[in-house]
Amino acid sequence: MIEQSTPVALTHFVEVADISAEQAIALLHRARLFEVEADAGITRTQPTRSVIQLLFFEDSTRTRTSFEAAARRLGCDVCLVTEKGSSAAKGETLDDTVITLLNTVDPDVVVMRHRENHSARHISQQPWNTAGIANAGDGTNEHPTQALLDALTLRGHFRDHTGDLAGLHVVIVGDIVRSRVARSNAHLLTNLGAQVTVVAPSTMLPEDIDLWPVAVASDLDVVIADADAVMALRIQHERIDTEAGLESLDYRERFGLTVERTARMKPGAVVMHPGPMNRGVEIDDAVADGPRSLIRVQVRNGVWARMAVVEALIAGRHAR
Amino acid sequence: MIEQSTPVALTHFVEVADISAEQAIALLHRARLFEVEADAGITRTQPTRSVIQLLFFEDSTRTRTSFEAAARRLGCDVCLVTEKGSSAAKGETLDDTVITLLNTVDPDVVVMRHRENHSARHISQQPWNTAGIANAGDGTNEHPTQALLDALTLRGHFRDHTGDLAGLHVVIVGDIVRSRVARSNAHLLTNLGAQVTVVAPSTMLPEDIDLWPVAVASDLDVVIADADAVMALRIQHERIDTEAGLESLDYRERFGLTVERTARMKPGAVVMHPGPMNRGVEIDDAVADGPRSLIRVQVRNGVWARMAVVEALIAGRHAR
Amino acid sequence: MIEQSTPVALTHFVEVADISAEQAIALLHRARLFEVEADAGITRTQPTRSVIQLLFFEDSTRTRTSFEAAARRLGCDVCLVTEKGSSAAKGETLDDTVITLLNTVDPDVVVMRHRENHSARHISQQPWNTAGIANAGDGTNEHPTQALLDALTLRGHFRDHTGDLAGLHVVIVGDIVRSRVARSNAHLLTNLGAQVTVVAPSTMLPEDIDLWPVAVASDLDVVIADADAVMALRIQHERIDTEAGLESLDYRERFGLTVERTARMKPGAVVMHPGPMNRGVEIDDAVADGPRSLIRVQVRNGVWARMAVVEALIAGRHAR
Repeated sequence: MIEQSTPVALTHFVEVADISAEQAIALLHRARLFEVEADAGITRTQPTRSVIQLLFFEDSTRTRTSFEAAARRLGCDVCLVTEKGSSAAKGETLDDTVITLLNTVDPDVVVMRHRENHSARHISQQPWNTAGIANAGDGTNEHPTQALLDALTLRGHFRDHTGDLAGLHVVIVGDIVRSRVARSNAHLLTNLGAQVTVVAPSTMLPEDIDLWPVAVASDLDVVIADADAVMALRIQHERIDTEAGLESLDYRERFGLTVERTARMKPGAVVMHPGPMNRGVEIDDAVADGPRSLIRVQVRNGVWARMAVVEALIAGRHAR
Repeated sequence: MIEQSTPVALTHFVEVADISAEQAIALLHRARLFEVEADAGITRTQPTRSVIQLLFFEDSTRTRTSFEAAARRLGCDVCLVTEKGSSAAKGETLDDTVITLLNTVDPDVVVMRHRENHSARHISQQPWNTAGIANAGDGTNEHPTQALLDALTLRGHFRDHTGDLAGLHVVIVGDIVRSRVARSNAHLLTNLGAQVTVVAPSTMLPEDIDLWPVAVASDLDVVIADADAVMALRIQHERIDTEAGLESLDYRERFGLTVERTARMKPGAVVMHPGPMNRGVEIDDAVADGPRSLIRVQVRNGVWARMAVVEALIAGRHAR
Repeated sequence: MIEQSTPVALTHFVEVADISAEQAIALLHRARLFEVEADAGITRTQPTRSVIQLLFFEDSTRTRTSFEAAARRLGCDVCLVTEKGSSAAKGETLDDTVITLLNTVDPDVVVMRHRENHSARHISQQPWNTAGIANAGDGTNEHPTQALLDALTLRGHFRDHTGDLAGLHVVIVGDIVRSRVARSNAHLLTNLGAQVTVVAPSTMLPEDIDLWPVAVASDLDVVIADADAVMALRIQHERIDTEAGLESLDYRERFGLTVERTARMKPGAVVMHPGPMNRGVEIDDAVADGPRSLIRVQVRNGVWARMAVVEALIAGRHAR
């Protein structure tokens, strides 16, 4: 069932482009192995307890707790620092905060979420940085472990954890321009062989969309019947009215995963959402909780995918 | 000294009505055993390290840290999520937050505090719920582990941890209608045989007080001389003036545990408070810190009582 | 390399005056031993896992995480309580919060940071206090573990971890009157034989400066050429304009560790900063990150110094 699995070593995991398709597949193998082991009650322990530093400058439940659970399952200790309560609240720079943590906590891995694009890349490139950097979301840029868990979910559901995603058609719908989830998924899923179509109102498409390896559509109903998976993005209420020029109900009408719309999907096609959801806007309750939904599987897979990433970054640091 | 003690298994502990008097006594046995073991330096370790999820949507010091200490003493790991810093701050529903935690942390027990009445009950009844739910306070409804630790305190002090509370007269004074502590204690203590009298200004009595298994009095001085224990509730300053129509000093005068008033209590009678205290309003400093006070014993007993509850919920989940 | 090192036992470490020069040297020995052990991959474990309570009522990154790392390296468990999210937010007194924590967590050591001067001393003197108190900053009064780590840094750099600090000239520059770092360092470094000069605008000197064991200067340029180390203090922006009557740029011009000014320091002389830094105000980027800077060494030494303090307080509690 599990193909032969050898650990991967990564220096950093900041953007999807940091890993090749082969490395992505190897990480997905490890992730699946961790799931099988967990179901069998097998616990892993680090010979030396690595410390994983979680540095979250934006709110999070699922990403933070799944990295925390991943670290615990790998036998690592965790140190959590959020913006509130830290010296960042007194105006300390991000660089100085990270330098401090590297020198006190001495983590093998720093998992960081920050509102600025490319903040994780910036830290990873500093000469003083001693840790493997896992990007848990940098502004509107990337959220690569979300893409990895989504690939794990699709590969598990459609491919029984074997091979790549060739032949799958994935539709991503919503505020593409501001979505780090869309950007990371567009690149990783196509690297793994899937065909990706993004659907959005024109105001929610990035200017450089021509450079993305995706098809673009404006009418969800045209593409949904051909999709194997539709991934709805979280829409921020305040942006609907002011920027998109349409009301919440209009958004739902045109871009929401409604009961009526998803009824026209192919048999076996699935719906996904990175969370947190605005139920009743981008997705209906009956869809989010219905038989096509892989949303809870996505959350659970987040733990296995992040275990694979943390393990790879620990290996990468010890290999330096 | 310790009666034969067998672990209890509970599916959930959301309201006092979830346990019979026999189960309550069994939990109190376990709690007392844990105290004796701790005093002897004995440490318990879970064969598999269960994870306890603490989900606190309201401020807490004693309940949170005593559940945390209870989990640690049982050899469990702990994951803490508060409203601030979580996706709840972005508008995620309570259901979705709990679903996320069940799928990332995979806890045996979720300890939850939430401002909405019956929120813990709601979660416990969902088909997707996989954890034992411990209610750490739901709005103005119930706080059942507080009642259990209060029963432990009374049983230890007056009954040397033997038998039930028959023959004890307990007076609860304060803002009964908004007190989850009062509601849980009224039911648990009477289930265990105690006689309970509640004392409050009429604006602070619930409309359904006739259905409670308690006597009602409006004059604390009439009943205090007969009480074995008086439990003062925390009064919220802003409610005293606007709703009760009386000033802080008036409240202290009529309902406060003052030095003068407690001097008229029976020899050996005690005072209790669930904390946090408004010293000088519902209780005088000299009473809170005086010889009749069991307030610190209550706090310490919170750890043993919550160990018993967490142990029972872990057993309950593994028995499913 | 490491002199014979025997553990120290301390009842509390609230102010620098709590330890003699001999005890300070013994703590520095232990701290250095912990560093050597860590570099060799040696892990310490408490035979009984002591619990260290961190009680932080003010923002912190370095002090909090270094105490946390110190506890973890000593094999202790940690419980963290901050003002936000605790009952302190509901108006509970500091005494009652600490009493609660002593009775739930039962820590061997309470590490506390609080905005009120002498709050740690107050707690340490209460008859109900059962823990060793480590002051992690009380208002503008003291921050003794910062002084200890600064002594460790100076002794390591200039004395190869041998002997005391006799013959060293240390200049402390900035808002002396509001600096707990200055107060603790002035006393500890002089106790260890160093000569200390404080430099500040007259509005930033304490009234009782004559009682301090230091020289006082108003012109940094006069004293900097003679200093072995200059310690810049964090300046709070809002105080510069309103109280000191000088603009940020003026402050930098007169009291900042600029590139030009530090170029006039002796060969081998160093700069230090307790953090968090206002880069471009009290210290230039090129100085903070330059060859004279020991700032990152200070942060790392914070872990070893705090391990020594925590170990000493655990020993002190068990010796009672």
